[in-house]
Amino acid sequence: MPAAVSVLTDLLILFVAAKLVGEVFIRIGQPAVIGELLVGVVLGPYAFGLIGRPGPELLELFHDDPAAAGEALQLALEVFAEVGVVVLLFFVGLETRLDDMLKVGWRAAIVGMLGVLLPFVSGTALMLALGEPAVESLFIGVALVATSVGITARVLRDLGVLDAREARIILGAAVFDDILGLLMLTIVSGIGSTGEVNVGRVAAIAALALGFTAVVALAGTWAVRRWFHLVHHLRIDSAPVVVSLALMLGLAVLAAAIGLAAIVGAFLAGMMLSEVAEEYELERRILPLYEFLVPFFFVITGSMVDPRLFLQRETIGLSLLVTAVAIVTKAVGAGLGGLGLSVRSISIIGVGMVPRGEVGLIVASIGLSLGVVEHRLFSVVVVMAVATTLIVPPVLTWLLRPLVEAPHEAVAEVAGPADS
Amino acid sequence: MPAAVSVLTDLLILFVAAKLVGEVFIRIGQPAVIGELLVGVVLGPYAFGLIGRPGPELLELFHDDPAAAGEALQLALEVFAEVGVVVLLFFVGLETRLDDMLKVGWRAAIVGMLGVLLPFVSGTALMLALGEPAVESLFIGVALVATSVGITARVLRDLGVLDAREARIILGAAVFDDILGLLMLTIVSGIGSTGEVNVGRVAAIAALALGFTAVVALAGTWAVRRWFHLVHHLRIDSAPVVVSLALMLGLAVLAAAIGLAAIVGAFLAGMMLSEVAEEYELERRILPLYEFLVPFFFVITGSMVDPRLFLQRETIGLSLLVTAVAIVTKAVGAGLGGLGLSVRSISIIGVGMVPRGEVGLIVASIGLSLGVVEHRLFSVVVVMAVATTLIVPPVLTWLLRPLVEAPHEAVAEVAGPADS
Repeated sequence: MPAAVSVLTDLLILFVAAKLVGEVFIRIGQPAVIGELLVGVVLGPYAFGLIGRPGPELLELFHDDPAAAGEALQLALEVFAEVGVVVLLFFVGLETRLDDMLKVGWRAAIVGMLGVLLPFVSGTALMLALGEPAVESLFIGVALVATSVGITARVLRDLGVLDAREARIILGAAVFDDILGLLMLTIVSGIGSTGEVNVGRVAAIAALALGFTAVVALAGTWAVRRWFHLVHHLRIDSAPVVVSLALMLGLAVLAAAIGLAAIVGAFLAGMMLSEVAEEYELERRILPLYEFLVPFFFVITGSMVDPRLFLQRETIGLSLLVTAVAIVTKAVGAGLGGLGLSVRSISIIGVGMVPRGEVGLIVASIGLSLGVVEHRLFSVVVVMAVATTLIVPPVLTWLLRPLVEAPHEAVAEVAGPADS
Repeated sequence: MPAAVSVLTDLLILFVAAKLVGEVFIRIGQPAVIGELLVGVVLGPYAFGLIGRPGPELLELFHDDPAAAGEALQLALEVFAEVGVVVLLFFVGLETRLDDMLKVGWRAAIVGMLGVLLPFVSGTALMLALGEPAVESLFIGVALVATSVGITARVLRDLGVLDAREARIILGAAVFDDILGLLMLTIVSGIGSTGEVNVGRVAAIAALALGFTAVVALAGTWAVRRWFHLVHHLRIDSAPVVVSLALMLGLAVLAAAIGLAAIVGAFLAGMMLSEVAEEYELERRILPLYEFLVPFFFVITGSMVDPRLFLQRETIGLSLLVTAVAIVTKAVGAGLGGLGLSVRSISIIGVGMVPRGEVGLIVASIGLSLGVVEHRLFSVVVVMAVATTLIVPPVLTWLLRPLVEAPHEAVAEVAGPADS
């Protein structure tokens, strides 16, 4: 497998660079994740190209087709990134009890819904005002909807504030956000391809997505409490860890099959298992996987950033406008859901929901493949996804400082009076 | 990254199948690795095709070129397999102290050398006797040389006998075997491409390979003893684990860059760190990575087996003949190096060195690309590599039974009088 070995070199560079720069960022008082994203941008194929460029073995495997070899290398790295973010959200889930989530359930639902509604309406209205066709405007509106919670979850964990109420509201809202995003994508895809909304299909997908989430969260938690001890009967080594990882991969794949984000499945798997995490020391035992795999998500995400997109004269104005709308409407929409909490809590929730990551790209690329979104607007969405991802870690870190410095018991005070 | 998510499905199937079948094999008293290999064969693209077949997202990414999409999926899976076997040998290294290796050093060197010489001479002679050209015969001879120690290392660990003297001799011999194999490949590649041997180049590669091994094993061990405690000054989480994993990846990549097997570098990294493994609980902390990643190597190796190769009428006779020569000459050659030990120990060492895995394929494919090895002989080498890999686990398990059942203190007795 000489080609596979050549990919090891990329993984080595990414891992060492992530950890070195992470160390530097921790020393200057910033979360490691910011360093990982930035070093990814620098090392990536669009900048210094230390990674992501296929070597001779790969080129040979793809009959000297550099495009195919590059795509294949990119895919191999993205699989590592995907497993990394699945492990991240699984780990975050392990630190999140269902009971604590249910306490913020309504609040999270409202944050999720308003955080979807405002960007969608504003994005669509902006495009219509700019004279774009209706269907294309709807697609751009939907592309502005879906929060990609990986970045925020990592910042929250880096800073050790996953048990703050704001963190739980964000995580819960991200689940609602993902379900709503899926439904909206189904609706506009229907409009884009057949010109009409198949109400039956939308209802079926809504039932499936809500059913999956409810069944996994409620029945799954119940089943784990009741039956997880059966792992003692297995003879394979580290059976509790193995069964946990199988659930993580299984629910991630199932969520993706339904159309939800794989990380939502992984988060729910972790939340189910949080019931027994202490008894089986799951966090401690899965931590090495976290340390090894999670950084790949962030450096590889960074490496996909093409800085030239920010320099395209034809689109840069529109890109900045759309990015500003994406940031403001999500922060305000999600923040509105936090009304009644302290200003800082509202800000944390609003900013925490801002990153869009790759979900917007998926929406835009479906629009592209249906022929209803132009290439020019696709690259606008790319800039929006990249910018919302890169801007959040430093701002969120700044906002979270008081929670980090105060002991966690004081969080409720910072966050205002309890709500449930 | 919808394409990357689609690869998650393959990883899920591989992981769950590996663990389920591993459980069954443990219950019937066999090492899990046999089950993992077999389930890989069954699930693979050449049999039931549950994995390794690109889905619609991948086909779209590669512009509906199924060959390129298939290669890319294969590459992504092989990277997981490669990281898995690197973690395996790293872990085995962690359980292997340099001092213990030096005690069996001469023995291991002789086992390695005789285990290389006999297959090479016999393979070349067989091909010449069958009327093949001299250069092609040399290539087939070299393709029979290199032991791929992953399978054996896993069986030894599954059975808990890594601390037996036979295990150390096999691991040490595999390092010598890999160095000799590299030199012979350099020599025949020179003959194949320019018709002559570049003595200076061979000497340089010999010096590099031996120097790398000696420096890493001796100076590396010394440096770890002296300086590893500096990890306390790092602020990143789990610094000892992170630094260990960086060394693992770094030496694996460096070994591969020199032309050695990546797993030799990973093994040496583990051996260096075995000095501090207990103090920093490295084994316990890296075990979850082992449980998650190592099975991928074996199921994916199994999935690459194309059973049709064993049914090709034109080549099956020659394939079986070459496989028999490969098994007998390696077992006898390596076993000769064990003279003076008990018959069982000699058998364990001989059989433990038999698997050839992918190293022979690399040699044969270089011959293929130089135009000195025919396609027909290439598939003969594939059959040899597959058969030697699949045959060893059950035989080795049977031979190792007394060591497993006896307490490990009794191993010296089983193995005959001490030699150093």
